[in-house]
Amino acid sequence: MAGVAGKQGNHVTPQALQEFLTALNEEIHERADWGEVADYIPELADVDPAQFGIAVVLAHGTVCSAGAASKGFSIQSVSKVFSLGCVLGRIGEQIWTRVGREPSGSRFDSILLLELEKGRPRNPFINAGALVVTDELLTGRTPRDALSEIIGYIRAAAGDDDIHIDKAVAQSEEKTGDRNRALANYLKSYGNLKNPADYTLGTYFHQCAIEMNCLQLANAGRCIAGLPGAPMLLSETRARRITALMLTCGHYDESGDFAFRVGLAGKSGVGGGLLMVAPDRASIAIWSPGLNETGNSRAANYAAERLAQFTGWSIFG
Amino acid sequence: MAGVAGKQGNHVTPQALQEFLTALNEEIHERADWGEVADYIPELADVDPAQFGIAVVLAHGTVCSAGAASKGFSIQSVSKVFSLGCVLGRIGEQIWTRVGREPSGSRFDSILLLELEKGRPRNPFINAGALVVTDELLTGRTPRDALSEIIGYIRAAAGDDDIHIDKAVAQSEEKTGDRNRALANYLKSYGNLKNPADYTLGTYFHQCAIEMNCLQLANAGRCIAGLPGAPMLLSETRARRITALMLTCGHYDESGDFAFRVGLAGKSGVGGGLLMVAPDRASIAIWSPGLNETGNSRAANYAAERLAQFTGWSIFG
Amino acid sequence: MAGVAGKQGNHVTPQALQEFLTALNEEIHERADWGEVADYIPELADVDPAQFGIAVVLAHGTVCSAGAASKGFSIQSVSKVFSLGCVLGRIGEQIWTRVGREPSGSRFDSILLLELEKGRPRNPFINAGALVVTDELLTGRTPRDALSEIIGYIRAAAGDDDIHIDKAVAQSEEKTGDRNRALANYLKSYGNLKNPADYTLGTYFHQCAIEMNCLQLANAGRCIAGLPGAPMLLSETRARRITALMLTCGHYDESGDFAFRVGLAGKSGVGGGLLMVAPDRASIAIWSPGLNETGNSRAANYAAERLAQFTGWSIFG
Amino acid sequence: MAGVAGKQGNHVTPQALQEFLTALNEEIHERADWGEVADYIPELADVDPAQFGIAVVLAHGTVCSAGAASKGFSIQSVSKVFSLGCVLGRIGEQIWTRVGREPSGSRFDSILLLELEKGRPRNPFINAGALVVTDELLTGRTPRDALSEIIGYIRAAAGDDDIHIDKAVAQSEEKTGDRNRALANYLKSYGNLKNPADYTLGTYFHQCAIEMNCLQLANAGRCIAGLPGAPMLLSETRARRITALMLTCGHYDESGDFAFRVGLAGKSGVGGGLLMVAPDRASIAIWSPGLNETGNSRAANYAAERLAQFTGWSIFG
Repeated sequence: MAGVAGKQGNHVTPQALQEFLTALNEEIHERADWGEVADYIPELADVDPAQFGIAVVLAHGTVCSAGAASKGFSIQSVSKVFSLGCVLGRIGEQIWTRVGREPSGSRFDSILLLELEKGRPRNPFINAGALVVTDELLTGRTPRDALSEIIGYIRAAAGDDDIHIDKAVAQSEEKTGDRNRALANYLKSYGNLKNPADYTLGTYFHQCAIEMNCLQLANAGRCIAGLPGAPMLLSETRARRITALMLTCGHYDESGDFAFRVGLAGKSGVGGGLLMVAPDRASIAIWSPGLNETGNSRAANYAAERLAQFTGWSIFG
Repeated sequence: MAGVAGKQGNHVTPQALQEFLTALNEEIHERADWGEVADYIPELADVDPAQFGIAVVLAHGTVCSAGAASKGFSIQSVSKVFSLGCVLGRIGEQIWTRVGREPSGSRFDSILLLELEKGRPRNPFINAGALVVTDELLTGRTPRDALSEIIGYIRAAAGDDDIHIDKAVAQSEEKTGDRNRALANYLKSYGNLKNPADYTLGTYFHQCAIEMNCLQLANAGRCIAGLPGAPMLLSETRARRITALMLTCGHYDESGDFAFRVGLAGKSGVGGGLLMVAPDRASIAIWSPGLNETGNSRAANYAAERLAQFTGWSIFG
Repeated sequence: MAGVAGKQGNHVTPQALQEFLTALNEEIHERADWGEVADYIPELADVDPAQFGIAVVLAHGTVCSAGAASKGFSIQSVSKVFSLGCVLGRIGEQIWTRVGREPSGSRFDSILLLELEKGRPRNPFINAGALVVTDELLTGRTPRDALSEIIGYIRAAAGDDDIHIDKAVAQSEEKTGDRNRALANYLKSYGNLKNPADYTLGTYFHQCAIEMNCLQLANAGRCIAGLPGAPMLLSETRARRITALMLTCGHYDESGDFAFRVGLAGKSGVGGGLLMVAPDRASIAIWSPGLNETGNSRAANYAAERLAQFTGWSIFG
Repeated sequence: MAGVAGKQGNHVTPQALQEFLTALNEEIHERADWGEVADYIPELADVDPAQFGIAVVLAHGTVCSAGAASKGFSIQSVSKVFSLGCVLGRIGEQIWTRVGREPSGSRFDSILLLELEKGRPRNPFINAGALVVTDELLTGRTPRDALSEIIGYIRAAAGDDDIHIDKAVAQSEEKTGDRNRALANYLKSYGNLKNPADYTLGTYFHQCAIEMNCLQLANAGRCIAGLPGAPMLLSETRARRITALMLTCGHYDESGDFAFRVGLAGKSGVGGGLLMVAPDRASIAIWSPGLNETGNSRAANYAAERLAQFTGWSIFG
């Protein structure tokens, strides 16, 4: 396999990248270090962990990919990036009165800090914060309309209308969502939920149940990565700020470690998806459903680190 | 005052930058929003808050500066960046067995998380983590020698031998350092302090009492920013990783907000100093002794945001 | 007003006690240190705080009382004592697999410890623990039947069938019960709620909305105080154990202080009620709707301390 | 073995009690459920866990005992009861400005709550609270004099001058006392330690190293139990209040459980000692060095429960 490209990797060619991804896919399957799939709903528990897909969209739209890059998966928490984009477009920086911008230093569904901080979630990428974002998107419209807005935003970002909600996943989320139901009611008790908890939760469960494949997800990330040719959904400043949040808060209690090891901004989901951006250079989607103990995809994390080494892409120099 | 340079700001000229800094210094004095100086030791409490200095070192060493850029101040926690560089040079990645790489989500001197995580500090930039780093540097040598190593490292990074410890500050730290003494003994109770607590604390208090000015500090940051012409003290990977830690953990419980608003990596100190890097482009030092409620310099933070806007420099695109 | 009776107070005569209570009622009105009524539901917010009632049932049923002793109030958390008695009668000590017996060191509705202790509430007198008790009482029966059992138990204890649920209170609790809804869903996420959260919550809200007056409540406490002539609802061991829990956990984060100052076991409610027992000697009910900052009745606490001083009754000698 | 005496047990005869204790000692040795000795210092680690002693002092001084009742052991945290008695005698209720009276809901050496409550320990029986008490006793005198006062108080309470400090234990405590050193410095950082941390700690370590046997300890508890004939060291009110604190806070995070199961007030020590009072009836000392997971003596706890069952003694009726 090819050596590290270093800083000159900025100029990595599509051919070299494609060769690397093909080899990486093989390497991942050889390692077979898959982790455990999420088991709280059957739709995730029944997924074969031994799967891997990756897609990289370069500036002006060149795409390289390998493995199961066109196989759909449940994007889960990756959706939080797009609902945040949506709400920033709708009400702008006002959203920060309801949710903070600091790493949480705790699990994705922790309620502890929420009590210490009196109902204001630390950031929009932990569950409590994402619920607040979705709740804001519901203001003045029905759950159906809010969902349409979110999924419409994602379709526009991806440039692909063939993106849908997996209803079976949404229903299972609904059935097992006691912790999220606790968080929503807790937010409500602090006056930080405007809509009936069931509305906000229903919308949130459906948003998490959106199914995409790596090619679609990588395309949808172009506007965050600020790639030339991306749909104009975010101002440059907003794109950077979302990227900043992905870097500091995108991997729950493993965010610092991801920034340290990989050096790129990413947002993970419990379905095994990972959206990652190398600003101005590439939007990357990786998927492998087996998780590590922090709830992030084991193989996707490994692949992210290898890709950063190969390309020399880093936010930090 | 000049408008925003945007992405083309990457090519900001030294003249334009110098003009901007001069104007910024005036703006800061006009705003006169200085915050409160730290008051736990007389040496800091007696500093006039209405002071401001800034120095920017560009690639190949061009320097622009304004205000009190050559006035010395106590670097305090900014020293944690250099002691980390030192220890990485000495024992490499092994240090991570003793300290984590995650944002803490709490105050710089909190002991709470240390209990929940059984004596392993979350990162090297909160006090507990910095104590562990200094403790590791003491292994097999005297406090005097360890201190010599740290200060020698900083002098080499800055290319300036005229950097010294302010003994009065060190003695005052020693006198009021009960919280740090608690942290050190707490670490020891978990077996995560190898040397007598007094040795580690003494070395740490002296390291925090190093005095530098903005010009020296900005020069010392060149190797972290990966500037051409910087002393070869850190590999490219290590420089990036220290930058990653500065971004995610460099401003205590305001790190996420700094990343979001400024978009550059920085490390602050309670003396009002701020070391900031724009990878491959610039190393920046700002100083203003008045602090905000999070313990970061109020005017330095403002200046950092203005500088990032003007130059268009951002880690995130 | 009479001096302290001291240990000989064990033999305080009903006449002396009645005189004391009459004088105490006057003293309370003269002090006029009423505190603030709970304001989360209109039915409690609209209550005039300047009210006070007290009833003391001695062995063999002699009753002394003063003030508004026959005015009904919402017993709220005092009901937790009786639902615990109920569940102990039904499944015995098994209940302790689902809930602990330790003081919580935190507010009545805190969710923090619940996270640290993985869904097992610390005791049956904080809200989370009481929800578990009510949930257990629901096993195998409808909410209506479970409620009938609880209210039937209280009627039997009081020897009075004229005890009812205030439906308006129950409905208001339901409307504002977001924090309890959060707790119930949180318990469910840990598998420590057997019934649908809405069932358990509905039953709990109705149980809290039971209205009683001091005379009824003091009579209902006879079996816990182990008074001769009390209905045989609890074995001697169970009565003692409930008393132990009232002492260590009966006043939320003020339990230690109450034990220290008053020296008798009590359980308070946010409606301003206080059930207190002097084992083998008396069952006491006090009511005054104004609360202190810990959520306990300000005047009832004062009266409890004065009564203990006068009678010399103490659990501690 | 004899059946349960029930409430009439109030009138248990010395003969019956002596027979019970003799049988209990045998039962304990047959069960051989000893637990693990504390292992943080060699003086405790080297003690044979298979030992048991018990002494019961009745009103007017009748003593029953069994097992190793005259074998000395390190009283450790049991000393906190006497230092509290001392300080109450010296400055009275003022001590409560520095320390609370609430159960902690956490381990004996936890620092977590101390941070949440800004340096005011929750009660005088957790380590942080006991340090504050000892610190107060040091005010205006030397460590030697303060220690003399504490040990003099205990000798007077026990009516026995042959009570001494085990210097080897004190030295070992000093060597391994990092957690307590952390607590002391933490208190100091909040201004809640008046003397140099080393003075307070040194006094505290020596106070914990006092050696007594069960007969001495049971005699020393007479004034807390309010037994006729006890030395006049505490007013009746103070004795009751110390008893209240023993009940709510005497067994760390097992206090509620002990109150529930045993129904008497006790204070345990990591040396395996347990001082227990049945107000007006008896002062009891039990010793067995093996501990349970909460740090309380396993066999002493069992014996306490059996004794309460046999005698019918209970604080709760």
